[in-house]
Amino acid sequence: MKGKLVASIEEAIGLCGLKDGMTVSFHHHLRDGDQVLPAVMHKIESMGFHGIKVSASSIHGSHGCLADLVRKKVVTGIDTNFLSRVVGETISEGTMEEPVNLRTHGHRPRALETGEIGIDVAFIAASAADCYGNMNGVDGPSAFGSMGHAFADAQFAKKVVVVTDYLLDYPLNPVSIDETYVDYVVKVDSIGDSAGIASGITTISKDPIGLLIAKTATDVIEASGYLKDGFNFQTGGGRTSLATTKFLKEKMQRNQVKGNFILGGINSLFVSLLQEGYFNTILDCQCFDVTAAQSLKNNPNHQEISCSHYANFCGRSCAAAKLSAVILGATEIDTDFNVNVHTNSSGVIMGGSGGHSDIAYGAKLTIIVAPLIRARSSIVVDKVTYLSTPGECVDVLVTQRGIAVNPKRPELRDRLEDAGLPVKEIRELYEYAKKVTGEAHRVKTEDKVVANIIGREGKLIDRIYQVAK
Amino acid sequence: MKGKLVASIEEAIGLCGLKDGMTVSFHHHLRDGDQVLPAVMHKIESMGFHGIKVSASSIHGSHGCLADLVRKKVVTGIDTNFLSRVVGETISEGTMEEPVNLRTHGHRPRALETGEIGIDVAFIAASAADCYGNMNGVDGPSAFGSMGHAFADAQFAKKVVVVTDYLLDYPLNPVSIDETYVDYVVKVDSIGDSAGIASGITTISKDPIGLLIAKTATDVIEASGYLKDGFNFQTGGGRTSLATTKFLKEKMQRNQVKGNFILGGINSLFVSLLQEGYFNTILDCQCFDVTAAQSLKNNPNHQEISCSHYANFCGRSCAAAKLSAVILGATEIDTDFNVNVHTNSSGVIMGGSGGHSDIAYGAKLTIIVAPLIRARSSIVVDKVTYLSTPGECVDVLVTQRGIAVNPKRPELRDRLEDAGLPVKEIRELYEYAKKVTGEAHRVKTEDKVVANIIGREGKLIDRIYQVAK
Repeated sequence: MKGKLVASIEEAIGLCGLKDGMTVSFHHHLRDGDQVLPAVMHKIESMGFHGIKVSASSIHGSHGCLADLVRKKVVTGIDTNFLSRVVGETISEGTMEEPVNLRTHGHRPRALETGEIGIDVAFIAASAADCYGNMNGVDGPSAFGSMGHAFADAQFAKKVVVVTDYLLDYPLNPVSIDETYVDYVVKVDSIGDSAGIASGITTISKDPIGLLIAKTATDVIEASGYLKDGFNFQTGGGRTSLATTKFLKEKMQRNQVKGNFILGGINSLFVSLLQEGYFNTILDCQCFDVTAAQSLKNNPNHQEISCSHYANFCGRSCAAAKLSAVILGATEIDTDFNVNVHTNSSGVIMGGSGGHSDIAYGAKLTIIVAPLIRARSSIVVDKVTYLSTPGECVDVLVTQRGIAVNPKRPELRDRLEDAGLPVKEIRELYEYAKKVTGEAHRVKTEDKVVANIIGREGKLIDRIYQVAK
Repeated sequence: MKGKLVASIEEAIGLCGLKDGMTVSFHHHLRDGDQVLPAVMHKIESMGFHGIKVSASSIHGSHGCLADLVRKKVVTGIDTNFLSRVVGETISEGTMEEPVNLRTHGHRPRALETGEIGIDVAFIAASAADCYGNMNGVDGPSAFGSMGHAFADAQFAKKVVVVTDYLLDYPLNPVSIDETYVDYVVKVDSIGDSAGIASGITTISKDPIGLLIAKTATDVIEASGYLKDGFNFQTGGGRTSLATTKFLKEKMQRNQVKGNFILGGINSLFVSLLQEGYFNTILDCQCFDVTAAQSLKNNPNHQEISCSHYANFCGRSCAAAKLSAVILGATEIDTDFNVNVHTNSSGVIMGGSGGHSDIAYGAKLTIIVAPLIRARSSIVVDKVTYLSTPGECVDVLVTQRGIAVNPKRPELRDRLEDAGLPVKEIRELYEYAKKVTGEAHRVKTEDKVVANIIGREGKLIDRIYQVAK
């Protein structure tokens, strides 16, 4: 059966009628192991296209080619939820004429639905597919797990190309996205290295400060009153955030709490919590390691969800709105609890919201974990360089030097103090760090806007400027 | 958690802003056991609405209230794929001003996608749901199995109301249609009687003529050359069609054939074939009995598919296009192999295409099974009263008096003859039956069109007229 199989990525590009100025899209489930975006973009370059817009759910270390393609004006537009430094640096230097749009995980599917992002051709990496395009992410040598971020692309793109390295007989089973959404299927040698899923931000902290902060964060959860039967939990992909999982288990055991769902961003630690009965189910929009991908395949209580189901707050409902507590990182947090996860303290783009501002908004208890000082800079600042997640969505900051509670949550502050936790004013933490690091240098920028930060509801919430030459 | 729960169907109708002239929709997975369409439509009547249009994937014996509501002009439009006699008779009498649109299962989701059918409020019966509207058809006391026909309604209706009698904690698991599509959830005492799923046309034949025909049909499959490894099979819901399953198993055993997928319309016989390893998988758009629903819940090789995935030939691809052989019924078949499944020989509406004309088109081998004479009328006629499935999609007619092969398939005729099967000209069968039954009376009609028959590609292929007074 030939089905929709075409001989090469080049043939698929030709059949889709790609033209200069059009938008192509990618998901980021293979993270630092992804070879599909590079393969497609190199082919687009070699075919002589210019002015291509890239919509990618996230841009990772494996996507460094985009920096070069931006310089060559093969790519003249980027719309993404996370922009790692390999490309972010080029953007921050003002290489691109048009500002990059930096969204949240929850808003991207909404923007696809409303047409704010119009995708001409979606290239969807699938770890297994049949020749008519039924696909999943759980089978094959490059299994990456949930296809959560690809559902909206499949649904709304004008043309959909499945790129796989593991072609199975029709009909594939199980199916995450079915053939009714697919135009062409391409078999390649490899879509990537699934070990690369676990690279970068998704490995657990081993440093003692990180572990102390993680432990304290779970003390906060325990004291907050939210740790009770039906507890719903998520952490971000940062190392310290992930380390909390370990301590949370002890708290749940001691308090005999039966959790309900884990949302994410799922790693092997969460899988253990599910297997050991600490939680009823996992709702998985993205796997952070191969163990999670295997669990999604084998454990019926580990459910795949779309990104819209995960965190789209402009839709009819989403899972993130039911979170009890989340633990997230920050590169900066200011004395109004506003968080920056888009740039480093020099104003260079090296990240993005991902789901940060979605789940911070959705959860009853949002905890930011961060070392007070990192690379000789204070994490707590007077005003964040750029705004990723508004302070109104943040309840607690946990550092190794104490805990700060957002003044809008006095009852929470009382509970943490009653539990004997080291609660301080956020300004105290700020002043302490300032003594050590000295006054933070205000980032120097040019007038050019290099990126728009778009909030969870699709509104512009900040602009990132070109770093000073 | 309250979620999207509202107190009653009446409240949901109010919140959805239903107005006179709007379109409401229903699926038919509970078939003769459905209590949701009647409950909603009675409520719509009692709330004083008029001129409501009903889009239902099929209208069954449990939907007799529609006849009354049509007379009262509460309902002034019907769009469906199957119209059972309890309502069809009223329509055939010319009670409604606007003709009913009778589509195919495969074209309905396409018409929803293009906006040809615009649904204002979809009422989706779910045998289990949570308070945010995650739903399935496999749990709960009224489990009916696949929700295949409801996917497009959820996707394209302006408002979606889930009606369930089995409310579970959030998040439901497994989920067929997720909360992102749902506006309101109503808990009722009962959505229906799941025993009613198996009623009507979905029970196996016991009469000897039916069994003879069924046996012969499988002889045809065996002799056709299509019964080999990778065989993909479907039958219609008629009794004789279903009886073929039994004989097919013997053929597969004898020929040591490993089938690939069963498509349907699934009953317990198909479930046995899957369990016993005769086929790799079932692709299930609709369960015909409770055993099938249980299998869908418990057997990972029994997959739920949407109706578009099942048989939408205007989309990018569908499973029906890969069928090796199908066995279908007919109320009339003419000497050009055109089939009528919409009316009886008196021209009264008592059925519809359902998936008939979709899968007849999709399969490599389409067999019509029918007794040559039924209720003193010949099944084979000079010209069908109304056209449901064009003769070009039909390959073989099997009756108890012989087999006829469409002249466009001379190689198939040769194979059947070589196998010693009783092949005749279709005109011979027609002449034989005419001798027994006498010349068929031409159906007498009025000038009024009561229904449009819309083919698998959305084109009008025939019109049904009011029966003569």
